[in-house]
Amino acid sequence: MSRLITLTTDFGQEDEYVGVMKGVILSRNPATNIIDLSHGIEPHNLTQAAFLINSGSRYFPDHTIHIVVVDPGVGGTRRLILVGTRRQFFLAPDNGVLSLLLNDEDFTFARAVTNEELFVKPVSHTFHGRDIMAPVAAHLAAGIAAETVGALLDRDELTQLPLAPSLTTDGKGIEGMVIQVDHFGNLVTNIDRQTVQQLIDNNAENKLTVSIGDQEIDNLGTYFDEVLPGELLSLFGSRDYLEIAANQGSAKKLLGVSVKDGVQIKLK
Amino acid sequence: MSRLITLTTDFGQEDEYVGVMKGVILSRNPATNIIDLSHGIEPHNLTQAAFLINSGSRYFPDHTIHIVVVDPGVGGTRRLILVGTRRQFFLAPDNGVLSLLLNDEDFTFARAVTNEELFVKPVSHTFHGRDIMAPVAAHLAAGIAAETVGALLDRDELTQLPLAPSLTTDGKGIEGMVIQVDHFGNLVTNIDRQTVQQLIDNNAENKLTVSIGDQEIDNLGTYFDEVLPGELLSLFGSRDYLEIAANQGSAKKLLGVSVKDGVQIKLK
Amino acid sequence: MSRLITLTTDFGQEDEYVGVMKGVILSRNPATNIIDLSHGIEPHNLTQAAFLINSGSRYFPDHTIHIVVVDPGVGGTRRLILVGTRRQFFLAPDNGVLSLLLNDEDFTFARAVTNEELFVKPVSHTFHGRDIMAPVAAHLAAGIAAETVGALLDRDELTQLPLAPSLTTDGKGIEGMVIQVDHFGNLVTNIDRQTVQQLIDNNAENKLTVSIGDQEIDNLGTYFDEVLPGELLSLFGSRDYLEIAANQGSAKKLLGVSVKDGVQIKLK
Repeated sequence: MSRLITLTTDFGQEDEYVGVMKGVILSRNPATNIIDLSHGIEPHNLTQAAFLINSGSRYFPDHTIHIVVVDPGVGGTRRLILVGTRRQFFLAPDNGVLSLLLNDEDFTFARAVTNEELFVKPVSHTFHGRDIMAPVAAHLAAGIAAETVGALLDRDELTQLPLAPSLTTDGKGIEGMVIQVDHFGNLVTNIDRQTVQQLIDNNAENKLTVSIGDQEIDNLGTYFDEVLPGELLSLFGSRDYLEIAANQGSAKKLLGVSVKDGVQIKLK
Repeated sequence: MSRLITLTTDFGQEDEYVGVMKGVILSRNPATNIIDLSHGIEPHNLTQAAFLINSGSRYFPDHTIHIVVVDPGVGGTRRLILVGTRRQFFLAPDNGVLSLLLNDEDFTFARAVTNEELFVKPVSHTFHGRDIMAPVAAHLAAGIAAETVGALLDRDELTQLPLAPSLTTDGKGIEGMVIQVDHFGNLVTNIDRQTVQQLIDNNAENKLTVSIGDQEIDNLGTYFDEVLPGELLSLFGSRDYLEIAANQGSAKKLLGVSVKDGVQIKLK
Repeated sequence: MSRLITLTTDFGQEDEYVGVMKGVILSRNPATNIIDLSHGIEPHNLTQAAFLINSGSRYFPDHTIHIVVVDPGVGGTRRLILVGTRRQFFLAPDNGVLSLLLNDEDFTFARAVTNEELFVKPVSHTFHGRDIMAPVAAHLAAGIAAETVGALLDRDELTQLPLAPSLTTDGKGIEGMVIQVDHFGNLVTNIDRQTVQQLIDNNAENKLTVSIGDQEIDNLGTYFDEVLPGELLSLFGSRDYLEIAANQGSAKKLLGVSVKDGVQIKLK
């Protein structure tokens, strides 16, 4: 039986790009089940993709192979890499899109993807998702060893992005940012539950305020219906990261905020 | 062999939400074939979803399990239910989204979804599609009995929405509304063929006029090419409900109408 | 084992139309793997679909059955056809959407799709993708002979669209057009590599200039990063047709160009 393959890209779904990647995979390995994780990454937004693949991949079975194609440098000198964690494989450009997984305790190895025998020929200069990542994933799904793909790489030589939120200098706050504005207009941040818990543990005060744009949100809730329809709240969302949301409404519309805008948590 | 599972949500396809539901299903039941019925329900539009699942589900095989996640009350007190018809299963919140199926002659049973042993733990407060509906569907697809999910519910205690069109007081017309504006700009209403036939049968006149916005459409046609390109017509569409359409054009753009706007049929 | 089926439509993904086609296929042939090639064809844009299915289908396995539903004449007098190439099958309306395949050296046969025993009954007047093409594809995928579908047609009696670029009268240029504006804003043309090579071979000069809108682009590159971020270049893209692109930007936004706008290549 073949391993599962997932696709995460900034391709959208209007063009044939996602479909032809599936055609290449199924040409090499007809038994593969291929799942779309997301094709809605903003073009070239590595930060957004880094959080999405890190959160989303956890819900997939052991041995799943995740392909991530957010690849502004395609055709140039950037490498393609295969990263193994304790449970799964990840194929992506070495541009930082796998940063969170490289720093995860489950990280196991990274390899360069260099074995041209596995590629679609001729390899184009603009679509390595189709010509390299899809066929390599198909072969991995069929059971070839990870070593076949290419040589081991040292984790320290891989590209990493600064993605973590930071504590403010007085130790009484957290500086983060909006990573994803979801379909409902919820604003998903890079502030995880552990960092907030650490802030609370380190301080006597425990009344949190979330600042975003020129708005302050005092209540950290647990579900949308706790506030009136149209009202804002903050909560730990389905990724277990801090989100700013509006009950039955769009926080994006209410706040006029977009990806990469800053979010602060303060203790009072 | 596993049963088929379909997904109908208001999630859109940009985020990872649909993908992680599939990951949860395949983690529990790797043999499942999962089909997207629609992720284009307007956020929280229960009426639109009620008609779509009722029409769409009929084209799927016996034993299919349909998951419907349009769930503004997630995390609050609303129940989740499993509804069985003569041919298929439906998992959804008890918020009226299954109203048309509850009143169908094929309705067989409704059960509360309460067996926590089947859920993903910990259950989040904001994503029961992933943590409850997906794993319960996976287990049902693998063959567990419906009784395992939870206790029987009386149909009368379930939430129902008023969705049917109504006859006008003089018995010479029908009041309905636009339920869905489709990708082509066709306006799909809640007025079914039987109700129109009943109107005709009850009256001597049989010349129908459809009123929408400030427009009157006299011809009830059968296919688009019966009128000139860009002209409006009404017809019973692929759901067998009345639609207002424009040949090779968008009725939505021509009429400036949107979901929930009224539509009248009158006899002359 | 069932053959693979792909779907290419102008349906978008908001409505249930794509999902119910899959339901019909799986009702007839539960073992089928169905892949979305694209549902982002502009409504009724036959030219766009003709290029997409021609390029995209090449990446799928032998014996794949491709369904193409771009069908403004649905319900009227236009025929539905089954086209066989050396490797694959194609089901589509006889409206020119398969023009490039009809003229391919791999073209093998065309048949009318007329065997009503294979159809969903009653056949609607507005959705032959669901009622005719989906069930016919399901039966073909399960192994019925192509003859079962309907009688052979002469290639010359089939509808064809003028899709090729033309040489200018002085023999020193090519007149083409934009066929597809992709998700990144790249402008994909109908100018293929062979036609450009022919132009170069026929002339002493070999300095190419690409004109589009009021812009002239001098460099024909091979990958995006060859120019500065935000700068325009032309290159042969993943379909091996000429594209106008901007490195890490949108050529569509920079040029304000859309589908069907003209593109010229000139030698200097």
